[in-house]
Amino acid sequence: MTGPNHYDVTEWPGGDPETDIGAVINEIIADVKRRQTASVGGSGGKPGAVIHIPPGDYHLRTQVLIDVSFLRIEGSGHGFTSSSIRFNVPEEEWPALHELWPGGSRILVEIPDAAFLVEREGSPRISSVEFSNFCIDGLHFVADGSDLHPENTYVNGKTGIRVVSANDSFRVSDMGFVYLEHGVEIHNADALSIHHNFIAECGSCVELRGWGQASKVTDNLIGAGPAGCSIFAENHGGLLITANNVFPRGRSSVELHGVTRSSVTNNRLHSFYPGMVVLTDGSSENLVASNHLLRDHEPWAPFQGVGNGRDDEYGVLRISGDGNSVIGNHFSEVVDAQTIEPRGATPVIIRLVEGSGNFVSTNHTVGSDVHATTGDSAFAAQVDALLTTSTSGALAVTTVLVDPASQGNTVLDSGTEEQVVIDTAENAFRATPSLPSRSTL
Amino acid sequence: MTGPNHYDVTEWPGGDPETDIGAVINEIIADVKRRQTASVGGSGGKPGAVIHIPPGDYHLRTQVLIDVSFLRIEGSGHGFTSSSIRFNVPEEEWPALHELWPGGSRILVEIPDAAFLVEREGSPRISSVEFSNFCIDGLHFVADGSDLHPENTYVNGKTGIRVVSANDSFRVSDMGFVYLEHGVEIHNADALSIHHNFIAECGSCVELRGWGQASKVTDNLIGAGPAGCSIFAENHGGLLITANNVFPRGRSSVELHGVTRSSVTNNRLHSFYPGMVVLTDGSSENLVASNHLLRDHEPWAPFQGVGNGRDDEYGVLRISGDGNSVIGNHFSEVVDAQTIEPRGATPVIIRLVEGSGNFVSTNHTVGSDVHATTGDSAFAAQVDALLTTSTSGALAVTTVLVDPASQGNTVLDSGTEEQVVIDTAENAFRATPSLPSRSTL
Amino acid sequence: MTGPNHYDVTEWPGGDPETDIGAVINEIIADVKRRQTASVGGSGGKPGAVIHIPPGDYHLRTQVLIDVSFLRIEGSGHGFTSSSIRFNVPEEEWPALHELWPGGSRILVEIPDAAFLVEREGSPRISSVEFSNFCIDGLHFVADGSDLHPENTYVNGKTGIRVVSANDSFRVSDMGFVYLEHGVEIHNADALSIHHNFIAECGSCVELRGWGQASKVTDNLIGAGPAGCSIFAENHGGLLITANNVFPRGRSSVELHGVTRSSVTNNRLHSFYPGMVVLTDGSSENLVASNHLLRDHEPWAPFQGVGNGRDDEYGVLRISGDGNSVIGNHFSEVVDAQTIEPRGATPVIIRLVEGSGNFVSTNHTVGSDVHATTGDSAFAAQVDALLTTSTSGALAVTTVLVDPASQGNTVLDSGTEEQVVIDTAENAFRATPSLPSRSTL
Repeated sequence: MTGPNHYDVTEWPGGDPETDIGAVINEIIADVKRRQTASVGGSGGKPGAVIHIPPGDYHLRTQVLIDVSFLRIEGSGHGFTSSSIRFNVPEEEWPALHELWPGGSRILVEIPDAAFLVEREGSPRISSVEFSNFCIDGLHFVADGSDLHPENTYVNGKTGIRVVSANDSFRVSDMGFVYLEHGVEIHNADALSIHHNFIAECGSCVELRGWGQASKVTDNLIGAGPAGCSIFAENHGGLLITANNVFPRGRSSVELHGVTRSSVTNNRLHSFYPGMVVLTDGSSENLVASNHLLRDHEPWAPFQGVGNGRDDEYGVLRISGDGNSVIGNHFSEVVDAQTIEPRGATPVIIRLVEGSGNFVSTNHTVGSDVHATTGDSAFAAQVDALLTTSTSGALAVTTVLVDPASQGNTVLDSGTEEQVVIDTAENAFRATPSLPSRSTL
Repeated sequence: MTGPNHYDVTEWPGGDPETDIGAVINEIIADVKRRQTASVGGSGGKPGAVIHIPPGDYHLRTQVLIDVSFLRIEGSGHGFTSSSIRFNVPEEEWPALHELWPGGSRILVEIPDAAFLVEREGSPRISSVEFSNFCIDGLHFVADGSDLHPENTYVNGKTGIRVVSANDSFRVSDMGFVYLEHGVEIHNADALSIHHNFIAECGSCVELRGWGQASKVTDNLIGAGPAGCSIFAENHGGLLITANNVFPRGRSSVELHGVTRSSVTNNRLHSFYPGMVVLTDGSSENLVASNHLLRDHEPWAPFQGVGNGRDDEYGVLRISGDGNSVIGNHFSEVVDAQTIEPRGATPVIIRLVEGSGNFVSTNHTVGSDVHATTGDSAFAAQVDALLTTSTSGALAVTTVLVDPASQGNTVLDSGTEEQVVIDTAENAFRATPSLPSRSTL
Repeated sequence: MTGPNHYDVTEWPGGDPETDIGAVINEIIADVKRRQTASVGGSGGKPGAVIHIPPGDYHLRTQVLIDVSFLRIEGSGHGFTSSSIRFNVPEEEWPALHELWPGGSRILVEIPDAAFLVEREGSPRISSVEFSNFCIDGLHFVADGSDLHPENTYVNGKTGIRVVSANDSFRVSDMGFVYLEHGVEIHNADALSIHHNFIAECGSCVELRGWGQASKVTDNLIGAGPAGCSIFAENHGGLLITANNVFPRGRSSVELHGVTRSSVTNNRLHSFYPGMVVLTDGSSENLVASNHLLRDHEPWAPFQGVGNGRDDEYGVLRISGDGNSVIGNHFSEVVDAQTIEPRGATPVIIRLVEGSGNFVSTNHTVGSDVHATTGDSAFAAQVDALLTTSTSGALAVTTVLVDPASQGNTVLDSGTEEQVVIDTAENAFRATPSLPSRSTL
């Protein structure tokens, strides 16, 4: 592909993208702005440009500032590989490893800040910036004062993409993000699409901040660190979070603050802690449906003992808000009864904390009491845990807990009389029929 | 990328794609046909070609006629920006705007017709034509005799892509469409994929006409004009409409005529009028599930007073047909009670008009009475409306209305005794349990 | 795009990709390995490479062996066209056909084996290999001793992509696969994404073998041969199968063996035989929700009489396992009552065979008795069958059958007293309310 609006970072005259791709891309953007100076009614438009990043390792020592619409930055490989696993392999074994680092079209972020910053005020909002199919690698985490090995802290001050100005019709797709404190952080989004990315081993993965509307987070593989969120949104309306496979860790798989009339549907969610999905700060009229939520134990030695500070009564799904719908979800709670906090408590699956008018129907929970095991291999340990079902004993759970501060809710077919804690003078309730007493279960 | 089957419109000898990209693409297609002349058993095949459109502004003054299989037309930027907002900004403010027009790999459609026409009869059906990652911009709407400003009519006779012959395995993905009377109009489709596009500010966005099967419309951002449909299909079987975020306007978000055994699942839908989802003309055995449907008011001044001619008893979801399933949807009805038509009527959420054997279960409606507000900024007004929940009063609604002409239906857990209007001598009914009388809701 | 890690098969010095693209790609991979030799702490990394395949016909006579991470193989056209329909057109009519073969960036597989083999042991697992937007064509099927025409056997020993080593973060997207005995066969996958492909007229389409976790199969068009599976998985945890449009044939649309805590949600599934979705070998705690399942008859003459050996009591959805959730699905069973096997039996929709603790709620079945018809045109016959609903008579079905070996299940709102066969001394049951006797249905 050629034409004046096509750039390749390896062909930019005078630049050295391997040493500082940030400086090269900034020069390219300056060139686009210099050439595209359409006046009203003039024949020249401002179509933007595409910047190609061929596979390769490119250090970024200068922050990229994007302040033009219609810029597409495009690589040829998302390049994710687990740095977490590698950093927990003894260094003397490294020479035996096939590769040490992520790859593809890989940006090595050398600054403790956002690698790509999008900022432009004024009208119209900056539009149609696209990031596609390259890798943003934060390289290392750093000591944070905890007992964790520095490479396991998920702290380094680095962000992959940060958008701070109001924006429209952006796309982040087919990307890879790894070892960043923040993967994608976008403020004030309209009609944003975050689609088919691999965002893992980042402190937080997707953060939709400020406010926004009509956006979607779809078909991604996502997994945050213990202190962050895999998907976080605040003050969004009409957000669609669907078809994502969200794996541990992450204090929450999905955490919504003041989010309304939005959907969390049809995702596969997996977490090691309570509070997998949290709707709070008046998050109202949302639909949480057809999701599979698995909460089990951390099986990997380096992270055992790490938690998110929430006990087992917090709720796997926790709601503060009005008029939400929780329909047709499956919950698997797989924990060692000896580890429940507070000791002797009954774990809570769905908890309605505040608000009113929520509708909880046709949800199914399977609770299993397992003896937690530890593995040296993250992958083998996880697969082993995931596939372990037959030897588990049943675990008693509270499938729905409605707090006194939450009233006027309707809870149907989401647990038996024994499993649901609800004030029926304040809420409508129909229990899932109990199994007959002679049943073998 | 090179090879004889790779073309770049900016490199085509003798052509001027900026003046008329249509003529250039037609010459390229003629070249493909001239070169690819495989006979039976011959060694040469007809693999088609890829035509690249680098970012830039390209006027189209000649309709492109595609009559070869395996043609891929590919840009580097979907280029959407709101022309609707710009055209409602006073023109004297335009010099202060960063950009005036959409961008990316942008086709400026200068003919009152389809920009891309796909037509080829005979066998086999034309296959595997792909459109990817460019922008088709209709530029302007025109006066239509109404009181609307000409740029707000959604009328100009222009279509982005029109396929009139039976076709197989087409793809329209990653595209942008703006200011066209018809975005994508495809007749007689088999195994079509319309995926991850931005199709907005078009009269109608996706129209699947004629008949078809086994197609999908997935993961798009879509929003039509008041007179058109965001997604329209007729005589399709096995159509999957999922993971779309459909915003206003659009007389319907989804309108199905004679569509059978198809799915409208897991979408986020938002409309300013009744009739958001309409299944009619014998649309039968379809599944409408896990959708979030928000109907509220037009908040933006230029379009206030515009409607779709349907009153509030029409139904937010309206069904004429047999054996459909409506399961696990959330409805938010947010209207000013003073504006309901006919005056004093109770708005209807799900309406079964004709047919029999429909199954409506586990749907939740939240009705809110709000004082409609007007904003000068489309975006700010919409976000403001979306996020307004806490100050709304409750609005009484009929959650399900079963007309006498529709019989033998089953309605479960989709409204209380007071909220459902149904002849229980003709239909099976189980009410959602009412809240206890002392409940605060 | 340029740089040292960008390759185009048509530009590889000394190679002839049209004659043997396999040999060319292997030479390219050898070149990547020769150049990328990073040592620990060295400045050079191993970013991998991208290999472009422009549109064209490329014979593959040497198997490609991929043993480097971060390799992306990318074409410009999925190129699917129906070979099945063509091979059933009399050969004397072939000269009148527009095209004879699939196209796009097309690999013609000339070896009775995997075209692309990924194999590399040791640590770390091979990562981030990507296949995108090209066509793998198996060309011909061969006689298998049955009465079928050789081109209709789905047998030829060919596989499109086979991955035999443990792998991480692979992507197969936007591809086309046709006339292969096995389309994609991946062992031991972690965080795999199979997205937006067209995989049809293959014996089996997607096979996830060995074990794996946290993967997804999303937004594909898929259809296998009568003896294979459209989607098969074994020993996977946390697999997400969603937004797929799966058409016939295929002995199963989805078959899961020992798969746990996974999702089959929001798919459109269509099959000509019983056993469309099978969960077996202890598949437990999975969610099957919001799917549309249509089982009807083979309408196309060349395949009539072919079955999968399962009779109508087998179950359209069949489960052996514990704690699965089956929620909010629509089933259409459209068969000629005269053809039911065993004769006079009542077809079974959901069958719980073994295990316990399954939860089946809010599923809707429509049964239709149709006179099976035959068509010479695969497409016309299928569309005709799909759209035929109004003239069908009702067909009595068992909506849920719980075998004695499956106990402690809960079945709610998934069939009337007459439609569900269940031992209520062993299982919890609430019938869908029956229609009133005077109802017209």
